[in-house]
Amino acid sequence: MSKPLFLGIDVGGTNLRLGVYEDCTLRWDVRVPALLSELFRRADSPAAATSQLLDLLKAGIDQALHAQPGIQGIGIGFPGFISPKTHCLSQSPNMPGLHDWDMVTPLRAHSGLPVYLENDALAAAYGEYALTGGMVENMIFMGLGTGVGGGLILGRSPFPGEHGVAMEVGHIIVDPGGRLCGCGNKGCLEQYASATGIQNSYAAAVPGERLNTKQIAERAAQGDVHALAAFQLAGDTLGYALANMLKVLDLEYVVIGGGVAAAWDLFYPALRQRLEADLIPALRGKIRVEASRSEDRAGILGAAMLAARLLPGTGAA
Amino acid sequence: MSKPLFLGIDVGGTNLRLGVYEDCTLRWDVRVPALLSELFRRADSPAAATSQLLDLLKAGIDQALHAQPGIQGIGIGFPGFISPKTHCLSQSPNMPGLHDWDMVTPLRAHSGLPVYLENDALAAAYGEYALTGGMVENMIFMGLGTGVGGGLILGRSPFPGEHGVAMEVGHIIVDPGGRLCGCGNKGCLEQYASATGIQNSYAAAVPGERLNTKQIAERAAQGDVHALAAFQLAGDTLGYALANMLKVLDLEYVVIGGGVAAAWDLFYPALRQRLEADLIPALRGKIRVEASRSEDRAGILGAAMLAARLLPGTGAA
Repeated sequence: MSKPLFLGIDVGGTNLRLGVYEDCTLRWDVRVPALLSELFRRADSPAAATSQLLDLLKAGIDQALHAQPGIQGIGIGFPGFISPKTHCLSQSPNMPGLHDWDMVTPLRAHSGLPVYLENDALAAAYGEYALTGGMVENMIFMGLGTGVGGGLILGRSPFPGEHGVAMEVGHIIVDPGGRLCGCGNKGCLEQYASATGIQNSYAAAVPGERLNTKQIAERAAQGDVHALAAFQLAGDTLGYALANMLKVLDLEYVVIGGGVAAAWDLFYPALRQRLEADLIPALRGKIRVEASRSEDRAGILGAAMLAARLLPGTGAA
Repeated sequence: MSKPLFLGIDVGGTNLRLGVYEDCTLRWDVRVPALLSELFRRADSPAAATSQLLDLLKAGIDQALHAQPGIQGIGIGFPGFISPKTHCLSQSPNMPGLHDWDMVTPLRAHSGLPVYLENDALAAAYGEYALTGGMVENMIFMGLGTGVGGGLILGRSPFPGEHGVAMEVGHIIVDPGGRLCGCGNKGCLEQYASATGIQNSYAAAVPGERLNTKQIAERAAQGDVHALAAFQLAGDTLGYALANMLKVLDLEYVVIGGGVAAAWDLFYPALRQRLEADLIPALRGKIRVEASRSEDRAGILGAAMLAARLLPGTGAA
């Protein structure tokens, strides 16, 4: 008897990504262009935009169900706050004006399958957790992309917090009075440790040049001190924030993913140095910090595994 | 039929406190002088000190059992890290040289009752949780005393972390490069928000005078700007640390206890102002921060309630 299949969908700012999994093994995947912010800016109303987005999701689900008829559940990772009580999208930075949108009910009706909606970073955290093969019970995931997001796994379950905003770690304030953040505060972690933050660090040191993170990493590899310093600042602020988080949570295992994680060797030494210095003595040397092992698929894997959790006895969770 | 009774013991630096509870109602209590650090400094060896401490605990337990024969379990809150795996005291700031001490087995043998050992601040957190009467599932407790400790309740259970050092929040770094802390780092929260921290703030502003926290509070009530500033700095650093913690945990309910909490009106406005300013917009206005309602008995109550949790069907947890 073949094992059940689960569809994971990761809704990003520029793409929908879909993957069908049998346990942690990818059986089928596809990427559908979908400019989320554009869609909302151009639509006549939030209702029109959600209608278009639902159509995109339904088309993707249909395509997956056609290719892989054995799918038994659908998980969606979405950029925004998901209410743990209603499973609605309470708000999303990409979709201004939208509040408490229920996408689960229409997608369940369309597909005839259970649908589970979760914050994208928390879904990615669950994907990284799934890849440990049950070797850990608790885990911190930090995703370094355009911003900095995160997800917390406690007792083998995703921990969304009471309002679905747990692990908004990009907004931990690491430098009071520092760089202005989109949230309105100053000195938030993502102003230093995200791709955007690293770009801003470099641009501040080398006025007139505007490079992307990959280009800055290339300069760093050639010994450019400003490029090296931009990544070191990212690592240092991450180490500071993580040490403070670990004093609260006391967990052993941290995974760092997202696009910036590709430049691991450029920020990790500074991260490790600051982390060890800032930790309480009882925790020094005990924290494992590792790069994502998902090859950028933590989001779809985690979403699929969260769907699998809904079905008792599948053994996937 | 009368309800079961549970004995809670709070081991402090200068006293053992014992209380017998029927649900959350105190039936009997006593305070036994015990200078913990002195005991360890004067003893010939750690083994001799633990032997003396065990004798004190046994005598206290005997006294409680004599006064209240219906006791069905014993909980102990102890200043130090308690291993969640072995239930041993892995280390204690008051007891240098001591590691992995098992006090549960001898006390269980002596009393013939189940014995539960927990970190003192986590026991106090559980006591504050018990006083909510089940109205909350999750809670952050911060205790402001000589140092700053804390305890986390998640899903109605104490959360010790993986090594029993969760909520070592006194060592959250709020001012990198700031005041030197006993842990070896600089700028830890307890250097500003504990009784000692407030005293140091005042002493730094008014050289030559060394007042205790109560005296500084009296000066503040008379309008002394340096005394007011010392409490405001405590509130401001607490608000900063709490906002960062809440971005990780997303919980609604925070209780602040310990001796400093008696000066609530002197630090709470600064705490609230900084907390609201630093929170992400989605959490502003949603966090309840309250003073302890335990009248300084959270430690013994929580220890007793943790013992009650061991007995299924008592309905106390």
